[in-house]
Amino acid sequence: MSFLSHLESVVKQVNGALACSVMGFDGIAVETHQVDSAAELDLNAAWVEYANILSQVKTAAETLKTGTVAELSINSENVVTLMRLVSPEYFLVLAMRPSGNYGKGRYVLRITAPKVKAEL
Amino acid sequence: MSFLSHLESVVKQVNGALACSVMGFDGIAVETHQVDSAAELDLNAAWVEYANILSQVKTAAETLKTGTVAELSINSENVVTLMRLVSPEYFLVLAMRPSGNYGKGRYVLRITAPKVKAEL
Repeated sequence: MSFLSHLESVVKQVNGALACSVMGFDGIAVETHQVDSAAELDLNAAWVEYANILSQVKTAAETLKTGTVAELSINSENVVTLMRLVSPEYFLVLAMRPSGNYGKGRYVLRITAPKVKAEL
Repeated sequence: MSFLSHLESVVKQVNGALACSVMGFDGIAVETHQVDSAAELDLNAAWVEYANILSQVKTAAETLKTGTVAELSINSENVVTLMRLVSPEYFLVLAMRPSGNYGKGRYVLRITAPKVKAEL
């Protein structure tokens, strides 16, 4: 299974999902699947910012006793963004409507991360 | 009702909660309620870092079309941290065990934020 089919499967399984991407911590997306109705949102610009933020969270966690960071979620007025670490270099990001199924989103990212990791 | 009683009420309502605090974006806690069993964790150091991160997320959101950021969550191996904006200067932070009730935590912070705001 290719990256893209994993991403399509995430978006399909989660109600309210807008887009799912495999990204590097440099802010560059390896592969993205976005639903047509999300075209008005400049998700890419947001994700470059968020990659930078997740990178800082990762560094902060290394100096703290809270353990390795596995997941970050940023919930704003129009978009809920879930991020899950895949490897030290890559992470999965899922954007969804605030009305979407948040719990299902977290679950699907958790089970998809090892599948994506196996192909990196 | 004082700040402290709001914070105690949050910790009491959420299974697995370790501590709850009202913090400023300068990383200084206004008031904190921590359960005794959480004494081994240096939550304060983590929260100073997280305040800085939340502040950046807030700034990033202002330049993006994702709308105002209401909530941030950082889930690491040992501690799950939920943050919710109360005002442009202050936020609520709740630390809980990864086995705790995440959904209840989000809900309780959401209904507590306006109560705390009313007293600021």
